[in-house]
Amino acid sequence: MMNLTRRALIGGVAASSLAPLLRPLPAGAAAPVTGKQAPGFYRYKVGSFECTSLNDGALTYPISADYVTNVSKDQVIAAAAAAYFPKDMVVCPYNPQVINTGSKLVLIDTGWGPGVDPAVGHVLHNMAAAGLEPGAVDTVIISHFHRDHINGLRKADGALAFPNAEIKVPSPEWAFWMSDDNMSKASGDMMQGNFANARKIFAGLADRVTKYEWGQEVVPGITAVETSGHTPGHTSFAVQSGPARVLIQSDVTNIPALFVRHPDWHVMYDVEPDLAARTRYRFFDMASAERAQVVGFHFPFPCLGQIEKDGAGYRLVPAAWSPVL
Amino acid sequence: MMNLTRRALIGGVAASSLAPLLRPLPAGAAAPVTGKQAPGFYRYKVGSFECTSLNDGALTYPISADYVTNVSKDQVIAAAAAAYFPKDMVVCPYNPQVINTGSKLVLIDTGWGPGVDPAVGHVLHNMAAAGLEPGAVDTVIISHFHRDHINGLRKADGALAFPNAEIKVPSPEWAFWMSDDNMSKASGDMMQGNFANARKIFAGLADRVTKYEWGQEVVPGITAVETSGHTPGHTSFAVQSGPARVLIQSDVTNIPALFVRHPDWHVMYDVEPDLAARTRYRFFDMASAERAQVVGFHFPFPCLGQIEKDGAGYRLVPAAWSPVL
Repeated sequence: MMNLTRRALIGGVAASSLAPLLRPLPAGAAAPVTGKQAPGFYRYKVGSFECTSLNDGALTYPISADYVTNVSKDQVIAAAAAAYFPKDMVVCPYNPQVINTGSKLVLIDTGWGPGVDPAVGHVLHNMAAAGLEPGAVDTVIISHFHRDHINGLRKADGALAFPNAEIKVPSPEWAFWMSDDNMSKASGDMMQGNFANARKIFAGLADRVTKYEWGQEVVPGITAVETSGHTPGHTSFAVQSGPARVLIQSDVTNIPALFVRHPDWHVMYDVEPDLAARTRYRFFDMASAERAQVVGFHFPFPCLGQIEKDGAGYRLVPAAWSPVL
Repeated sequence: MMNLTRRALIGGVAASSLAPLLRPLPAGAAAPVTGKQAPGFYRYKVGSFECTSLNDGALTYPISADYVTNVSKDQVIAAAAAAYFPKDMVVCPYNPQVINTGSKLVLIDTGWGPGVDPAVGHVLHNMAAAGLEPGAVDTVIISHFHRDHINGLRKADGALAFPNAEIKVPSPEWAFWMSDDNMSKASGDMMQGNFANARKIFAGLADRVTKYEWGQEVVPGITAVETSGHTPGHTSFAVQSGPARVLIQSDVTNIPALFVRHPDWHVMYDVEPDLAARTRYRFFDMASAERAQVVGFHFPFPCLGQIEKDGAGYRLVPAAWSPVL
């Protein structure tokens, strides 16, 4: 491409300055490989708010027969292949968000925390790369109580990862997971494990946790949006500063290549799968109608994009990476 | 999302370690905004080669009547709107590539260099962020002689930006732009400016520049692929290490949202527009048939993806950002 300005068309370095400073050609030893990826953070503005997408890592795992409960494994494998995933595998990224409203430094969801897998648990590392201090976080807002969203509240020794933060949780999510009656009725390792995990993570935090309601401004500029189904209290967020608005969808959908394209597919993690599917259609209809920028916890980093209708489903159009804020 | 391993399902931090270390809640002053984007580099492997996509920045400019020469401005504006560009504008990114083959550190194209616009000319800054020394570059391979590809060979004072590098240029590209006959026949500010610019940039570099032919391995593992039309000597590259292969398309297409989708559209920078369009179909047919990973100089950073057929045109499926190498 060529710039369109006359300055660029006609300009260029002055001929007189072009005497080359020749030095000996290299001796032949190439630079050693670094073996390191770039840090996993990305900045974007919402009005006057400075937001930072933080990558917690990604897990790659084989597609099991029960990964999507209402279609065949072959259909899922075909959709994964169409999305250029490794053969018979899915890759699931995890992306908490930081919103600096100017008066509050807010973290939405926390990532896996330590000890699960070397491929995840990188939020604190990427926060440091982004110049953000965990101790400066005023508020942690939790979308729902699955462990990739809450376990990063704790460090390996159990201490609070964000020691000065108030923790705000969806009122119906707290009610669901803290109900002994619900726990006693939970069937299967996954659900039983999730009840136990939520109670462990929130143990002793009663004076640090506050509950918010759907429709409420959790922090000025960040409104809780009801998107239940994935879990009974699953919550998305509308971030608004002046006329600018971004929708943080949390887990309305898991991996977009599968579940934005096929919103009626039931990923095994959806606690109320029929409701979750209805919520996907409702949320994506809203997002596509207003051409909203949408942030997805499981979208490929930096996890911003637009949702469009595409046949019977939708598609994610990833936002172009911007070199400037 | 929830991990599938039993360890993650059942595990979690030990209850005994969860006594919270409560500290006072914050005094209320939020962290100052940083105003800074993440550094513009991204690593990917091609077999044993470690590659680094380097962002030189992006220019945003209004869609002029002659930007696409064979369709109406309204059609272009509609396509830009469909791609969520700012109203009546296009955003064009610039992305040189570093290939560390293990024996050679190679830079393919250089970006705009200094002095054009604060929004571009960031290759050296992003190389530094990626831990790459300009003096360690053994070879600079040039795809074609448009200034966003060659002007970064020089620093503001005219000195060589990669002082130890051999510079390899396409033989037919050199022949075209260095022909006095061609220059005398050039019409319009843009073409005349490009002839003058190429001669200024390469002035005095005869002993540093070597010419390569299409079909040749320019550096072991990097083969020049004829993709003429955008310019008469325009070249793409096949990077191969073992069975792994990536196609660096250079400027076979400009902005994918417009010209991958509409390969028959003639962007004003195409010197031989009919040939450039035929080259696009030929190259994209090849890339889609082999499901190749394609790197595009003007794709959104980090500028890797797959090209698929889509109706009468094609679409770019951006590669998912990988947190690991």
